[in-house]
This record gives sequence, structure tokens and C-alpha cells, in this order.
Amino acid sequence: MKKTLLSIALLTFGTTAVTYAQSDYQADSIFIRKIFDTALSDGKSYEWLRDLTQKVGPRLSGSAGAAKAVTYTRDVMAAEKFDNVFLQNVLVPHWVRGSKEKAYIISGKQKINVPVAALGGSVATPKGGTKAKVIEVKSFQELRALGAEKVKGKIVFFNRPLDPTKLNTFVSYGGAVEQRGSGASEASKLGAVGAIVRSMTTRLDDIPHTGSMRYASGAPIIPAAAISTNAAELLSKLLKENPDTEIYFEQYCETLPDAPSHNVIGELKGSQTPAQYIVAGGHLDSWDFGQGAHDDGSGCVQSIEAVRLLKDLGYKPKNTLRAVMYMNEENGLKGGVAYADSAKSKNEKHLAAIESDRGGFTPLGFGIVATPTQKAKIVSWSKLFAPYGLHEIGPGGGGADIGPLAQQGTVLLGLIPDSQRYFDYHHAANDTFDKVSKRELELGGAAMAAMMYLLDKYGVE
Amino acid sequence: MKKTLLSIALLTFGTTAVTYAQSDYQADSIFIRKIFDTALSDGKSYEWLRDLTQKVGPRLSGSAGAAKAVTYTRDVMAAEKFDNVFLQNVLVPHWVRGSKEKAYIISGKQKINVPVAALGGSVATPKGGTKAKVIEVKSFQELRALGAEKVKGKIVFFNRPLDPTKLNTFVSYGGAVEQRGSGASEASKLGAVGAIVRSMTTRLDDIPHTGSMRYASGAPIIPAAAISTNAAELLSKLLKENPDTEIYFEQYCETLPDAPSHNVIGELKGSQTPAQYIVAGGHLDSWDFGQGAHDDGSGCVQSIEAVRLLKDLGYKPKNTLRAVMYMNEENGLKGGVAYADSAKSKNEKHLAAIESDRGGFTPLGFGIVATPTQKAKIVSWSKLFAPYGLHEIGPGGGGADIGPLAQQGTVLLGLIPDSQRYFDYHHAANDTFDKVSKRELELGGAAMAAMMYLLDKYGVE
Repeated sequence: MKKTLLSIALLTFGTTAVTYAQSDYQADSIFIRKIFDTALSDGKSYEWLRDLTQKVGPRLSGSAGAAKAVTYTRDVMAAEKFDNVFLQNVLVPHWVRGSKEKAYIISGKQKINVPVAALGGSVATPKGGTKAKVIEVKSFQELRALGAEKVKGKIVFFNRPLDPTKLNTFVSYGGAVEQRGSGASEASKLGAVGAIVRSMTTRLDDIPHTGSMRYASGAPIIPAAAISTNAAELLSKLLKENPDTEIYFEQYCETLPDAPSHNVIGELKGSQTPAQYIVAGGHLDSWDFGQGAHDDGSGCVQSIEAVRLLKDLGYKPKNTLRAVMYMNEENGLKGGVAYADSAKSKNEKHLAAIESDRGGFTPLGFGIVATPTQKAKIVSWSKLFAPYGLHEIGPGGGGADIGPLAQQGTVLLGLIPDSQRYFDYHHAANDTFDKVSKRELELGGAAMAAMMYLLDKYGVE
Repeated sequence: MKKTLLSIALLTFGTTAVTYAQSDYQADSIFIRKIFDTALSDGKSYEWLRDLTQKVGPRLSGSAGAAKAVTYTRDVMAAEKFDNVFLQNVLVPHWVRGSKEKAYIISGKQKINVPVAALGGSVATPKGGTKAKVIEVKSFQELRALGAEKVKGKIVFFNRPLDPTKLNTFVSYGGAVEQRGSGASEASKLGAVGAIVRSMTTRLDDIPHTGSMRYASGAPIIPAAAISTNAAELLSKLLKENPDTEIYFEQYCETLPDAPSHNVIGELKGSQTPAQYIVAGGHLDSWDFGQGAHDDGSGCVQSIEAVRLLKDLGYKPKNTLRAVMYMNEENGLKGGVAYADSAKSKNEKHLAAIESDRGGFTPLGFGIVATPTQKAKIVSWSKLFAPYGLHEIGPGGGGADIGPLAQQGTVLLGLIPDSQRYFDYHHAANDTFDKVSKRELELGGAAMAAMMYLLDKYGVE
């Protein structure tokens, strides 16, 4: 019976039993408790975030703010006495918004101003703005079915909301964001003169949300902007009442020549295999309004904090641990690409990379991109995270900035925080420091530190 | 082997296999998905909360606001065409704050104003305020060790912070709140002339948090107030520099004669056993500043929403389902007691009672107070909640208002939301509508509806 029980146990808990020894549990759980206790009682990330958001402020790639953010985070890691702190050159796109945009709806005798923001990467409107009748669509399929005859000379209004029934709001976002990214070119191929997109948020409010868009090769280049969700609801209602409703918008954005910038890297040297790396990171750039508090100031300070916690708790890593602030996630991903290229050219073997780029909210788990064996190994650590509310170790992706490391087979992990509020603030002027909870932020940094510790101690194979 | 496997399976998953049939899973998961989809796409609780917080506003027991809240929630349930909506008489304590409090620290030549709030139930200071030297303590033990000689004529300053390392901030609160509840009498027994308490919050800020206190029988009655955590830090620092530091405070609160008020109840009649009840509730009263948005406007509108969702989805309950707005949780619990007394006298058998009184944050689970068999039955439904992020079905308590139902053996369930932000706002002027996330609130109401559905369908035995 004993043997049967054992084989059943292996059948039931198989990989767990194989990859994580019960005998390690006590020591690991004690150390991880220390990580969380220290983060919650003597955490540093919240004050760093205060400075990064309120003293540095917005930091779009190529801006003076981005340059200040590079200096600030480098100085923080130097002050924390990381073994090595350095910058990595990155050439980044340099898009600027220019003067504030304006937009209004004209319906019959009504002229109603609406909150608007140019999309990142868009061109300006011609002098005197763009005004035209509006065609509302919910999908590219619907747009194409209308055909050039009905679209030509019009402004296409992309009004598919984020699906509110998805528990993970990133899934809702993923189901709608093509309208922002590709809507303008889909519209211009059919002769549209402009594109207006419903803001990518789960809320109904008066705040426009920007974000990147791309022009498809060969499609005519037309200006694109986002209006607030309340404005989108209004425009849709007015169009039903009066199909001749027009919208006017003017914007002054432009793309300047690429600008020199940097990734910022701080490290603790590994004591056994220093040429092997485990990294935690976030992206240092943000959109140009608000303060980039959740997106992604939080991920940056959590990454520094994760390494700082391990250092201050006296942990001596086998592998080299890094905090990496990637530049230019929002409109180019040049930092993530440059980081992976550099790692390859310097033969830096990256065992694992963690990214936090889903806001500084209560952490619920980690998404893992890895082989099934690697995934099973990491999942076997789940019970070390459960006391801290991280019950979702497994499903989900890594992160945009660490994606390029996949080319060298690095295990990618994305911190998964509670996503309910993320799109309230995403790419908008209200993504400010006061929207971040100190404790929620600290729990995320601690979770990343705990994951780095386990990855370092047990490896990924 | 087949038999062995089965017995092992029973060994491993025992109670689950016994109490929840796999064959029910599909239908239940489909219905629960409908509950969540409806809550997130056509939820009504957020707009009710807007009215309750912004049109009704604060609603301390006995106040005009409390009376308006009774009328408002009764009208909401009537408009939703609940089968029966009625009020239940409750006589409640009637404490009023009076004019705004003042406090300042005098240390050497410095006179520094500090944010202060009288504690609920406290007496006023004598005319001209109370001013005295300050004795700081972290515990009642420390206070008693000082003895009457060192305490007499002083103001005792209770400055034990909430423990930041507890993941569940209610545990931190539970470890500190005796200072607020009993500190004044503990101090007055030793001859103190006043009690100043560090605000019960996990944050460092300038916002005083009120809350109830009680005078111990026989102890001299002295005034008690809370100062903000930043003020508490400052006072502690100044006391170290100068032990002769004094504090002055004045407050005008008083306890008026008990006032007539009401619990508000709405119900869907049971189709099979209408004299058996399953109830969801929150408390309608709030403290007298802020808007009582998280505490406990959220719990009230979630409870109405839970019943409304089941009704609008066409669910025909076996037992009678009720939404109950209890009056006077904050300073007396008269509503909860009156409800249980009425249930007993009318022979209303209450199978289960759910309470939401931990804020309108993302729900993580339910705490259960029940027999082991009942608990196991409810825990066996866990996988129906896991897709919605509720992974913690089991540990935790019920709720203050439903506590008195324990006398008739009712199963008590407390909704457990994420607690990280709760004490940022608790009993304070910043507990306002804008602090509540629509989606987080809606998830809580949906979770309560799903639990009511399962309790009704399968019973508790």
C-alpha cells in the first residue's frame, strides 16, 4: 500500500514532488517572509516613485523628462551601492505632441467640444484642422464592408468598446487596441481623411487616452486621435440622430529625428556564475501627459526594490542579478531590443527575465513563458507565494521589453497585478502618483524579489 | 487499481467529492458566468453608490443623513420591484460631533496645529479645552507599568502603529484598535485627563480617523480624540526632544437621547421554503465625515445588487432571499441585534447570512463561520469562484452585523476583498465615492450573488 500511495502521489503532484523538495520549504518560506516584511515595513519603492513621478514627471522617449529619469534611476541604484550601475545607449523615436489638441462635434446647430488626444506616432492635421462627416464602425470588417464609396472624404470613428465582461482587463484591451494601432491606415486605404478612436479604457469618463499607432506601408497618411469614452458615446448618439454629424479636430504633433537615450542597469554580481543573469525590469519611458505612475514608473521602482531587498537582506546571489530600466517601450521598444542585442553580443546568458508593466496594483501571480519543464518547476514554488495572495502562477505572458530575450531561450515572467483599475489611468493624464497604493506597490516589488531569489537558488532547468 | 485510485481520490479530495457533484459543475459555472457578465456590463451598484454617497452623504446613526439613506435604499429596492420591501424599527445611539475640533502641540516655543477628530462616543473637552503634558505609550501594559504617579494629570498618547507586515490589514487593525476603543478608560483609571490616539491607518498622512470608543464602567470619563499619523510621528519626536511637550485639544461632541431609526430590508420570496432565509447585507450608517463610500456604502449597494442580479436573471429561489441594510454598526450594532431578535421572534429560519463590510475592493474570497461539515460543503464550491479571482474560500470571519444571527446557528459568511487600501480611508473624510472602482465594486456584488445562488440551491447541510 505504501508503494501504491507513493506512486499515486507522484501521479497527482508529479512535477511538484520532482522539482521542489519539501525539505527546502521551511528555509525558503522564512526568507521570503523576510523579503515581504522588509518591503512592507522599510520599503523604498514608494518614495522613489514619488520622485520619479513628481520631480521627474512625464518622460516620453527623446524628451528632457526621459533624460532626467535616466539620471535619477542611475543615481538611486548608485546610492543603494549596487555593485555596478551603467547606461546602455539606445537610439529612440522622438515624437512630440506640440500644442494642445482641440476637437468638437458639429451636429445640426450644436457645436460641442470634446476631450481629445493625438495618438502617438500620428501626423498633425493640416493647417486649419480636419473636419468631415463621420462614419462610425465597430470593426475593420465593418469598415471594409462599407467600401471606399462610403468612406472617402470622411473621418472614420472606431467605437468598439473594451469588453467589460473579461475579468482580466488586458484581455479586453487586447480585443480593442487594433483600432488605435491600425485604424488610421485601415481607414485611409478607403480614402478617409482622419481617424477618431474611442479611448482604450474600461471606464466611461472625460479623459482621452493616447497610445501608439503605426502607419501601414503604402497606405495614405492621415491624422489620428482618441476622444474620451463619454465623447464617443455622445458622438455615436448624435450620429444616430443625425447622420450628417461632423467632427473637427486639430493637432500639432510631429516626429523628429531619432534621439540618443539609454537603458539604465544596476547589478549585484553573482558569486558562482557571474556571467549568468537574472533580471527584473520595467520601462522608464512614459507617455507625455500624466506622470506615468502605474505605466510604468511602478515597474521601474519595483525592479530596483527587488534587487535592493535581496542585497540588504544579505543574499549572495549565485548568478548576477540586475534591475533594468528599459527605454522606449511605448513607441518603439528600442530599449528592449537593444538590451537583448547587447546581451547576445556580450555572451551574457540570461536565465530568466521578469517584467512588471501592468501597474503597481496588488500582485496576484506571474505569467510564465518557458518550456513545459521550466514552467512546472516554477509552478512548483506556488505555495511559497500563496501566503501573499499570489495564487496565479502560470497563465499569462512575460512583457514587451523582455520579449526580445526569447531569442536566447530566456525564461520570461510577467508580474500579474490585479487589473481592474489599470485602464482607468493607462496612457492618460490621470496616471499620477496619488493613484498608487504604497502597500500594493510594495507587495509587487517583494513578489519580484522572492521570484528572483528562487530562480537564482534553483535555476530554471 | 481502479478501486485503489478511487479510495485515494476520496482520501485526497474527500469532502469535495462527497458534497459537490461534478455533474452540477457545468450548469452552475454557466449561471455564475451570467451573474458576473451582467454585473460587469449592466451593473447598477455603482450608480446607487454614487447617490448614496453624494446625494445622501454621511449618515451617522440618528442623523438626518441616516434617515435619508433609509428612504433612499427602500426606494431603490421598491423601484427594482423586489417582492417585499420594508423597514424594521431600531432605536440607536445618537452621538454628534458638534463644532470642529482643534488641537495643537506646544513644545518649547513651538505651537503646531495638528489634524484631530473626536472619537465616537467621547465626551467634549471642558470649556476652554484640555491641555496637559503628554505621556506616550505603545501598550496598556506599558501604561500600567508607569502607574498613577506618572500618569495623573497628563494626557496619555497611545501611539502603537498598525503592524505593516500583516498581509491582511484587518489583522493589523485588530492588533491596534484597543487603543482607540478602551484607551481613554485605561488612562483615566490612572488619573489621566485626556486620551490622544494615533489614527488607525496603515498610511502616514494628515488625515484623522475617527471610530467608536467606550467608557469602562466605573472609570472616570475623559475626552478622547485621534490625531493623524503624521501628527503622531511628530508628537513622538518632539516628546523625545522635550519631555515637557504638551498637547491641547478642544472638542464639542455629545451623546443625545437614543433616536428612532430603521433597518431596511428587501426580499425575493422563496418558492419552496419561503420561511427559510438567505440574506446579504451591509450597514447603512457611516461616520459623520467623508461619504462612507467603502464603509459601508459599498456593502449596501452590493447586497441589493446581489439580489437584483438573481432576480433579473430569472432565478427562482427555493428560500427567501433578502438584502438587509443594517443600521448602527459603527457605534452600537443595534441594527444587527434588532434583526436577529426579530428573526427569532418571527421564527424566520436563517440558513445563511453574508456580509460585505470590508470595502468595495476586488473580492478575494469569503470567510466562513460554520460547522466543519458546512464549511467543507461551501469550500467544495471553490472552483466555481476561482475564475473570478476568489481563491480564499474558508479562512476569515463573518461580519459584525450578522454576528447576532449565530445564536440561531446561521452559517455566516464575510466577503473578503483585497484589504491593502481599506485603512487609507476607514472612518475618515477621504472615504469618498471617487475612491471606489466601479469594476471592483461590481465583482464583489457578483460574488455575493453567486454565493447566494449556491447556498439557495444546495442548502448548508
